[in-house]
Amino acid sequence: MSDELRVDGRRLDARLERLGQVGGLEGGGVCRLALTDADRDGRDLVVGWMRELGLEVRIDGIGNVVGVRAGSEAGPPVMIGSHIDTVRTGGLYDGNLGVLAGLEVVETLIDAGVETRRPLAVAFFTNEEGARFAPDMMGSLVFQGDLPLDEALATRGIDGAPLGDELQRIGYAGAAPVGAAANPVHAYMELHVEQGPVLDIEGVTIGAVEGVQGISWTEFTATGVSNHAGTTPTRLRHDAGLLAGRVIAFVRELAVEFGGDQVATVGSLELKPNLVNVIPNQARFTVDLRNTDAERLREAERRLFAFVDEIAAAEGLQVSHRALARFEPVVFQAEMVDRVERVARTLGHSVRRLPSGAGHDAQIMARMCPAGMVFVPSAGGISHNVREYTCSEDIEAGANVLLHTVLELVEPVAGAGREGI
Amino acid sequence: MSDELRVDGRRLDARLERLGQVGGLEGGGVCRLALTDADRDGRDLVVGWMRELGLEVRIDGIGNVVGVRAGSEAGPPVMIGSHIDTVRTGGLYDGNLGVLAGLEVVETLIDAGVETRRPLAVAFFTNEEGARFAPDMMGSLVFQGDLPLDEALATRGIDGAPLGDELQRIGYAGAAPVGAAANPVHAYMELHVEQGPVLDIEGVTIGAVEGVQGISWTEFTATGVSNHAGTTPTRLRHDAGLLAGRVIAFVRELAVEFGGDQVATVGSLELKPNLVNVIPNQARFTVDLRNTDAERLREAERRLFAFVDEIAAAEGLQVSHRALARFEPVVFQAEMVDRVERVARTLGHSVRRLPSGAGHDAQIMARMCPAGMVFVPSAGGISHNVREYTCSEDIEAGANVLLHTVLELVEPVAGAGREGI
Repeated sequence: MSDELRVDGRRLDARLERLGQVGGLEGGGVCRLALTDADRDGRDLVVGWMRELGLEVRIDGIGNVVGVRAGSEAGPPVMIGSHIDTVRTGGLYDGNLGVLAGLEVVETLIDAGVETRRPLAVAFFTNEEGARFAPDMMGSLVFQGDLPLDEALATRGIDGAPLGDELQRIGYAGAAPVGAAANPVHAYMELHVEQGPVLDIEGVTIGAVEGVQGISWTEFTATGVSNHAGTTPTRLRHDAGLLAGRVIAFVRELAVEFGGDQVATVGSLELKPNLVNVIPNQARFTVDLRNTDAERLREAERRLFAFVDEIAAAEGLQVSHRALARFEPVVFQAEMVDRVERVARTLGHSVRRLPSGAGHDAQIMARMCPAGMVFVPSAGGISHNVREYTCSEDIEAGANVLLHTVLELVEPVAGAGREGI
Repeated sequence: MSDELRVDGRRLDARLERLGQVGGLEGGGVCRLALTDADRDGRDLVVGWMRELGLEVRIDGIGNVVGVRAGSEAGPPVMIGSHIDTVRTGGLYDGNLGVLAGLEVVETLIDAGVETRRPLAVAFFTNEEGARFAPDMMGSLVFQGDLPLDEALATRGIDGAPLGDELQRIGYAGAAPVGAAANPVHAYMELHVEQGPVLDIEGVTIGAVEGVQGISWTEFTATGVSNHAGTTPTRLRHDAGLLAGRVIAFVRELAVEFGGDQVATVGSLELKPNLVNVIPNQARFTVDLRNTDAERLREAERRLFAFVDEIAAAEGLQVSHRALARFEPVVFQAEMVDRVERVARTLGHSVRRLPSGAGHDAQIMARMCPAGMVFVPSAGGISHNVREYTCSEDIEAGANVLLHTVLELVEPVAGAGREGI
């Protein structure tokens, strides 16, 4: 009976389009920075849809919104969640898809008259992007409890605005309590666009997300001696740029040697004085290391630092460094990953396991309950860009995988269904 | 008799100090950009000294000034030359030392009553630095004939001023003809500060300059694909920064492998979008290759281009390049280099052969006559900087090497000398 349930892809598309008009940019794309007027308008729209579906809407102290459909038993709900804030030049899908697919799952169950043993909640968390207020994933961090509410409310935006004031201003400073103890959740599921190229390039429809990569960002500043590029023999050089160049080459070799999910990037680099005929006396550059395996990530860091020390000593450079970011990897519970993979196969979709290279609310929720994620392809791997795009077929497929994954968790009440209406 | 001749180091120092006051900067250093009022004042001062020493002063169409002391025979003079223009924040020594040491050689000969078979000329060439008008070494290029006078006069400065107008304005548009045919020279000698660290670090007083390095400057622009540093697996990357990094490492290895006078520098590098978590889609960087051996320099270029092609193909990058500068190496006549080395040894100074990494009027004069150079140490290798410094002992040593090198070329008239006055 419920095995044959399918979402209405066109209805989901229509909601994505409609929400995308709020804060829509000329020429395409969306700007709904957290707690702006556009964010309020987007929230109002989604909360309206929640109420139309008969969900009980709760808003907590950081503005997270949770709409609950009761189960046949009380107890912790299964939660579908994501976010509806965007970066300054975002697309229609990042975050929004997870929330609106949650509403589509609810509406599909309602339409089919499927009741569930556990309550089913659809949530959107405040300020996942971190594009206006730091840190990112703020709403889920407060919901889960690792970020104190007071601290979050005291945050100032890049525009100087205090977060608490902005939350009051847009009318989303709610009364529901925060913290895991006040908000038990049975399991959490999130459907999201991949934001990377793997599914698109491999022609695979569904990603069963194994976890979220750990991140290590380090900025190095090497100081050498600026000298004439013509008159300074090699043996007398203290070339700060040499360290940068060797590190670029080294971290690529490291990523290839480590294999697996290890990636390494030197994205930012500046030389001084940056003249064709002067040996650089300063090189400032960043190294972004990521791995899903905590120990491998630490090993990559150790190898990098040892290499930097070695080259700096050989070239006679002073090197300082500072950590710009450091997150441990998150591994989703095996049963959650297996379930997504199995459901996708059962529904006839191509599927592969893969890590998430970006951060998501699911990784925070994984601290308080079993959590899982479903990825659908991002065309060209393009993300945080007005050209972000996922085709309707993939969106529908992802929403159906979400539906049946969630159905296993909420447990349909036997005998209920369309026939029972 | 003339073997025992020595310059008056204090007199030379005094002239360097005096000339350094013209266009002197607050806190030290000098700004006498070519054909400015300060350059005119410097020229007037030096021409006055030439006249006090009884030299016949000739000024040609590009403003080169040549002061000639007659020999016992007519014919091409031995010329001591350099320049008195400076960069915007220059020192007392670069160029000025060669010209004023020439005057000191003349005065030493006069004081000792030494007459010479060949005429002895002291010259300063217009706009050697190229800091206001391009190209550098302009005056010697016009003097020698490879740069047409009309073309040079039509040049506009970085301030927009036409060179010909400025030359008229400061009163140095002379009537003497230009070109090698009109200006036969028997041999040319130039004393200069090294502008590099070799003599200073090695504690050697005199450099016998073997030639001037050939220069090859290339700017590369690599284009890849900008993508998320977390979500893009290594195998799917087209990282423009990787090429830059590998080239930095490669050209250092090339310089070490080639040895000799080969140097290689990546001085300038810019990444786009230059963000910690985005794979660079563009890297623009320069490679400065120099060698005194023309064939080795070409081989270095070939190896560099082959390496760039190889990495670009492997990483899937488009690469364009443009030549920013290309000069063939100049090799000074062996007898000229040997002479400097022998004279330095005879005078009891430590000496080593070395190439010049910077350009000098001597390399242009080498196209029309035997040319040689004497280097003295630059403290810390610092050049084109108000902190440029060479100690009085080294200046005196260099001027004495110049004196005796030139004496061999001008040939003292037998029996003349102090006794003969």
